Amino acid sequence: MDFPSKLIEEAVNQVSKLPGIGKKTALRLVLHLVKEKKETTFALTEALSTLRENIRFCKKCHNISDAEVCSICTSHRRDSTLLCVVEDTKDVMAIENTAQYNGLYHVLGGIISPMNGIGPSELKIDSLVTRLSDPAGGIKEVILALSPTMEGDTTSFYIHKRIKEYPVKVSVISRGIAIGGDLEYADEITLGRSISARTLFN
Amino acid sequence: MDFPSKLIEEAVNQVSKLPGIGKKTALRLVLHLVKEKKETTFALTEALSTLRENIRFCKKCHNISDAEVCSICTSHRRDSTLLCVVEDTKDVMAIENTAQYNGLYHVLGGIISPMNGIGPSELKIDSLVTRLSDPAGGIKEVILALSPTMEGDTTSFYIHKRIKEYPVKVSVISRGIAIGGDLEYADEITLGRSISARTLFN
Repeated sequence: MDFPSKLIEEAVNQVSKLPGIGKKTALRLVLHLVKEKKETTFALTEALSTLRENIRFCKKCHNISDAEVCSICTSHRRDSTLLCVVEDTKDVMAIENTAQYNGLYHVLGGIISPMNGIGPSELKIDSLVTRLSDPAGGIKEVILALSPTMEGDTTSFYIHKRIKEYPVKVSVISRGIAIGGDLEYADEITLGRSISARTLFN
Repeated sequence: MDFPSKLIEEAVNQVSKLPGIGKKTALRLVLHLVKEKKETTFALTEALSTLRENIRFCKKCHNISDAEVCSICTSHRRDSTLLCVVEDTKDVMAIENTAQYNGLYHVLGGIISPMNGIGPSELKIDSLVTRLSDPAGGIKEVILALSPTMEGDTTSFYIHKRIKEYPVKVSVISRGIAIGGDLEYADEITLGRSISARTLFN
């Protein structure tokens, strides 16, 4: 791509580093900003740099938070005997949106992925073990809610190995055919597992 | 969407103002930046604010340019008797990529669109008329290369009306079935026009 200006080229290069954004989309976004008022761009860059400068993580669950301890961890309405282990903030938001879960969270900050150089030490697994080993913590069940992929399963197995000495129940979110999904279009592995892991009709 | 942090919320709101980016994509991009090193975010915001602060437009053709007059307008290798009128920089880049055009450009900065409150006075049409009225300009043909939409056609008609008093040939880029396209899937209007505007087989 030949750019009419070095400034445009640099902006396109930076924007296209974002995941899922190629050079063409980046150019479209950059030219949009050029067309809009200066304030639009400055509000955007200000929000992003303020975020990156001041972002904090809850010291208990490691979710993104504005305070030292997040609103979920400090809430008295949550069931503090349940702990749901997730990969990142997006997963916390997705589970919160279901309104089906009332316990606490533990955000790992990623999953074990040797391909991307992410091992257990990069994740908040030691911190999870510390939380469970605290007798005052009162956690009775750990729910592993990681993606049903090779990496997610590896991480679940690893965490299970690390925490099995503690007197907590360890569960995993159910897997099977998505509700509203079509049996015909489900992949064989999911369909196969949903048959072998069938539950009683009630 | 309930955000765990006001900083995230503000960043998502700003990013989702970009065209074609919804709240979910914005959240994914913002969380990506949070996960990456601070420098990634600062390089991005720096590039965008520098661009928006320092962007310049060629005073002849109004394309984005690093200099007062852009490299196409100053080039001695370009055919200065041909002037191609386009909507914006993306179109200049697209036509340059074809390597089929060797003339100059005139960038309108948009097209007439009453729905979006854009009238002829918002566009660089007066400047086009001034370019044509200059006897030293030497322009012999104006090629209207606007999108074949209602707005594009309206703009073409308007420009034609404004410039028909000048002794220049006015042409329009050809329309018809796209090369490599399938007749069966072409819309009726395009197919109909491509029949009525047929050219001799040679």
